[in-house]
Amino acid sequence: MTYKTVGLIGKANHTATSKSLSVIIELLQERQCEVILDERHKDNFTYDIGKGSVEFASTFDIGRRAQLAIVVGGDGNMLGAARTLSEFDIDVVGVNRGNLGFLTDISPDDISRQLTHIFENTIYRERRFLLQASIYTGDTLKQSNIAVNEVVLHHSKVARMMEFELYVGGHYVFTQRSDGLIIATPTGSTAYSLSGGGPILMPNLDALTLVPMFPHTLSTRPVVIDANSDVMLKISEHNSEDVQISCDSQETMQLSPGDHVTISKNQQHLNLIHPPDYNYFNVLRTKLRWSDKLY
Amino acid sequence: MTYKTVGLIGKANHTATSKSLSVIIELLQERQCEVILDERHKDNFTYDIGKGSVEFASTFDIGRRAQLAIVVGGDGNMLGAARTLSEFDIDVVGVNRGNLGFLTDISPDDISRQLTHIFENTIYRERRFLLQASIYTGDTLKQSNIAVNEVVLHHSKVARMMEFELYVGGHYVFTQRSDGLIIATPTGSTAYSLSGGGPILMPNLDALTLVPMFPHTLSTRPVVIDANSDVMLKISEHNSEDVQISCDSQETMQLSPGDHVTISKNQQHLNLIHPPDYNYFNVLRTKLRWSDKLY
Amino acid sequence: MTYKTVGLIGKANHTATSKSLSVIIELLQERQCEVILDERHKDNFTYDIGKGSVEFASTFDIGRRAQLAIVVGGDGNMLGAARTLSEFDIDVVGVNRGNLGFLTDISPDDISRQLTHIFENTIYRERRFLLQASIYTGDTLKQSNIAVNEVVLHHSKVARMMEFELYVGGHYVFTQRSDGLIIATPTGSTAYSLSGGGPILMPNLDALTLVPMFPHTLSTRPVVIDANSDVMLKISEHNSEDVQISCDSQETMQLSPGDHVTISKNQQHLNLIHPPDYNYFNVLRTKLRWSDKLY
Amino acid sequence: MTYKTVGLIGKANHTATSKSLSVIIELLQERQCEVILDERHKDNFTYDIGKGSVEFASTFDIGRRAQLAIVVGGDGNMLGAARTLSEFDIDVVGVNRGNLGFLTDISPDDISRQLTHIFENTIYRERRFLLQASIYTGDTLKQSNIAVNEVVLHHSKVARMMEFELYVGGHYVFTQRSDGLIIATPTGSTAYSLSGGGPILMPNLDALTLVPMFPHTLSTRPVVIDANSDVMLKISEHNSEDVQISCDSQETMQLSPGDHVTISKNQQHLNLIHPPDYNYFNVLRTKLRWSDKLY
Repeated sequence: MTYKTVGLIGKANHTATSKSLSVIIELLQERQCEVILDERHKDNFTYDIGKGSVEFASTFDIGRRAQLAIVVGGDGNMLGAARTLSEFDIDVVGVNRGNLGFLTDISPDDISRQLTHIFENTIYRERRFLLQASIYTGDTLKQSNIAVNEVVLHHSKVARMMEFELYVGGHYVFTQRSDGLIIATPTGSTAYSLSGGGPILMPNLDALTLVPMFPHTLSTRPVVIDANSDVMLKISEHNSEDVQISCDSQETMQLSPGDHVTISKNQQHLNLIHPPDYNYFNVLRTKLRWSDKLY
Repeated sequence: MTYKTVGLIGKANHTATSKSLSVIIELLQERQCEVILDERHKDNFTYDIGKGSVEFASTFDIGRRAQLAIVVGGDGNMLGAARTLSEFDIDVVGVNRGNLGFLTDISPDDISRQLTHIFENTIYRERRFLLQASIYTGDTLKQSNIAVNEVVLHHSKVARMMEFELYVGGHYVFTQRSDGLIIATPTGSTAYSLSGGGPILMPNLDALTLVPMFPHTLSTRPVVIDANSDVMLKISEHNSEDVQISCDSQETMQLSPGDHVTISKNQQHLNLIHPPDYNYFNVLRTKLRWSDKLY
Repeated sequence: MTYKTVGLIGKANHTATSKSLSVIIELLQERQCEVILDERHKDNFTYDIGKGSVEFASTFDIGRRAQLAIVVGGDGNMLGAARTLSEFDIDVVGVNRGNLGFLTDISPDDISRQLTHIFENTIYRERRFLLQASIYTGDTLKQSNIAVNEVVLHHSKVARMMEFELYVGGHYVFTQRSDGLIIATPTGSTAYSLSGGGPILMPNLDALTLVPMFPHTLSTRPVVIDANSDVMLKISEHNSEDVQISCDSQETMQLSPGDHVTISKNQQHLNLIHPPDYNYFNVLRTKLRWSDKLY
Repeated sequence: MTYKTVGLIGKANHTATSKSLSVIIELLQERQCEVILDERHKDNFTYDIGKGSVEFASTFDIGRRAQLAIVVGGDGNMLGAARTLSEFDIDVVGVNRGNLGFLTDISPDDISRQLTHIFENTIYRERRFLLQASIYTGDTLKQSNIAVNEVVLHHSKVARMMEFELYVGGHYVFTQRSDGLIIATPTGSTAYSLSGGGPILMPNLDALTLVPMFPHTLSTRPVVIDANSDVMLKISEHNSEDVQISCDSQETMQLSPGDHVTISKNQQHLNLIHPPDYNYFNVLRTKLRWSDKLY
């Protein structure tokens, strides 16, 4: 793979992140790459930025111009970058800060070795799909957003019941009174959805899981559907107060009673790359501590 | 039992409620009781209020002056009344609006017969304890409230993680990252706590259940503790935004990072009375549809 | 669709079943079909078998000779028939005994109308895949069986722990100490797997769910995998006693310590047909009583 | 406390156990105690048994003659010993084999220091109650057994449904179709019951939890009841095959269709002693790895 231009994304004013970024900058300059650094570091990147020059730009511009983006941080940092980068034809890889992440699986100690793999293209490559959530009042699109992990319908206030209808592929599924509903991708199935009792979906599945939040009907269970089925949520007129749609717990959109939301597979994918020895079950076992035997 | 003064509590501007209240007023006047009606009906109680006179007063004044309070409505209506009435030595009974409630278990069609039981004292009598939640900044008590069903610690925004420490009886239990924690009485164990995966506690148990909300540590489980053990929650300084304490999903108090909350058994009880043939398991079976066999 | 030969399958000595079979026989004879009746009825089918003749044969021979098989009974009866019929190119439809089944969704009162739909081919047609479970000692295949709903690995004695390793697609997943593991198809996801906390998989998903039974590691969760991934279970040498593999809770095979089991998608499918207005969510809502609102 | 006679219980032919027993024997002989060793070691106790003499006896005789019993092993070993020792007025303490147990909480490295605490009576002392399960055919008692952790009603074959009625305190609770029911003490609430989704009951609670196993009715939930309420299970006449009662997964009794089982608090208690710094939450956190934060 020829990566002429490489973008680097990571939180500003965070020592460990800056350290890893410095290491990466130097390695990339050795490979004669043009390096674009996350513009949030513009005013305070105190680490050595090597012999060559480094340009500063937004994640959007990195997506537009680079062939590879390296995100330094936790899975939460990757989510934000991924929502933007998925719009572009760019490879994305994550470097964690010491704790193995589902999306950020290169250890900071292993950057040099893994960069070699990346440039030699001896990597594990996969495509993760995203969701698009669009809010309509009648036929009018009010707002739209995308999500890597999950779209969550919930009340603006915690522990307040709401009522909505769920449709899948145009078919009525149920009317639910609950705190809300999680619609998670396989990528998101190990995040919020899992805390809520949802199943783990292998990343290669073309499926979504719908997980009710504190449902009043005790026989409600998580459902797994084809990711190509459109999901539609109709918000009851009876909800006394406003409800919300959250994307990856990072972006929030307001809904009014009577609005409806469509959630469907986004056309763009995230081109995620992993170390050559990447094994999803290893990550799962490590994160969920499955080797532990309790009593 | 001699009930000279009887208070009637129920939502205003609600036809079915007003109808039941009318029936009850007439029956009480036949028994020469002094009747005090919920002051929310003052301006619009259009139903017949019988030959005698009816006085209007607040729930607090009903508690102060009556020996019996009849609450017409669902369990939610009872919760609000019960928090106030528990401060007084008064019997409380619930008349539902057609659907059997855990706390409102007299059917509107059965009011006359059950009032006879109540006045002949051939009833099932029980005491339900309440919780007191008090918020402290350092040693200073900021705010306090009581709950019949549950005290819930949660983020002001949904699906945002918070971090807190739990202490029971002075002992450190765990540091948890989650959406929050439900501390439910036996009365509340069939409400929000149940939707969150908590166990059902028989009403005569002197116990509380602590139910984590969307915990990050997947091995966290509901815990049942002695109701006489004080529960203390220390809110981490790291929580970026404010968190809240809700009582019965009806009263909300704000917490700041670093605050702590104590939750302990309140000294007053709710003196709840039921029909003579009351059977908790009947209610449970009916509400949870346990006789249903699925496949 | 021309169904010249139709097989009828249903429990013997069961009044309601025999009644429905009689109705169906008469309707089929009116349509000039050759009718083959489940041989279990040979000695005791006392109902009218119409003007024409009826032949008796095994489910296997029905599969071999008929183009349509009608199974009268509950989902359990369908499972047994389906394991045999899936080996043949035959349409299969289920008539229940009053309670809507997931697989037997024609009401006994509606037989005549639905038979017209079936013969006019105005039906809802779907293919359900089956699993094949094969037990090996070393490289030697000891025994093999197929399942419509699920393959279950479990101890011969209840509440006795066993230890095994799980591999998916050749990759090691975990070593588990538990009472066993359920590997369910979408069809089986609403049966035993659901009782064990598994998710509901839409019938059109090409996926399996793996549901641990009483796992010792509390962070173990149901996992959903691609149905084309082979599952392999290695039974630990340390299991003091024998363990078993059950198919649809109807067929049992013994395993010895050190054996391994492969579970993979069977090559044959069940050609299941439904009424034209079939809607999976309707069945789900009815069976799981999702419209019920509890408190 | 004066412990003149001390019994030692532990698996035979187990190196680590024998090593710990040797250390304990020597320490007890230094304290001039009479030592009685588990008779299973009679023929093969190869370790040094010190200068003094050691007698061999059954657990029952240890209970009858000693004032203190030290059980070396895991929680499973303690359960067997505790069912016998609870019949006597004897203190019981557990020494684990390296992994902290709920009942065996003295580390093998810490024996000497903890024995000093025990003999100086600077220990944490608690009473754990046991259950008695009695099987009746009509009015005739067929068989009876006791349990420290749990009584489990289940089918003799795995994954086979059974039907039974549950009564608590003489009141009908429900008719259930399931794989069985777990009735667990607080002590047992962290064992099999927890794997089945039951809540954790603090050890000082006078309560039981009833946990359904793979129930067909999806709205069935774990219930916590007063430990002084008798539990009665009526086995349906319709169960085609025999069902069983297990005590602590170690003792099994057969039931016939139509039998009933009573489960009630046993009159004897286990006098369990712990190190002076014993803290139940510490054990829980360690065993359940609650300090772990996952993502």
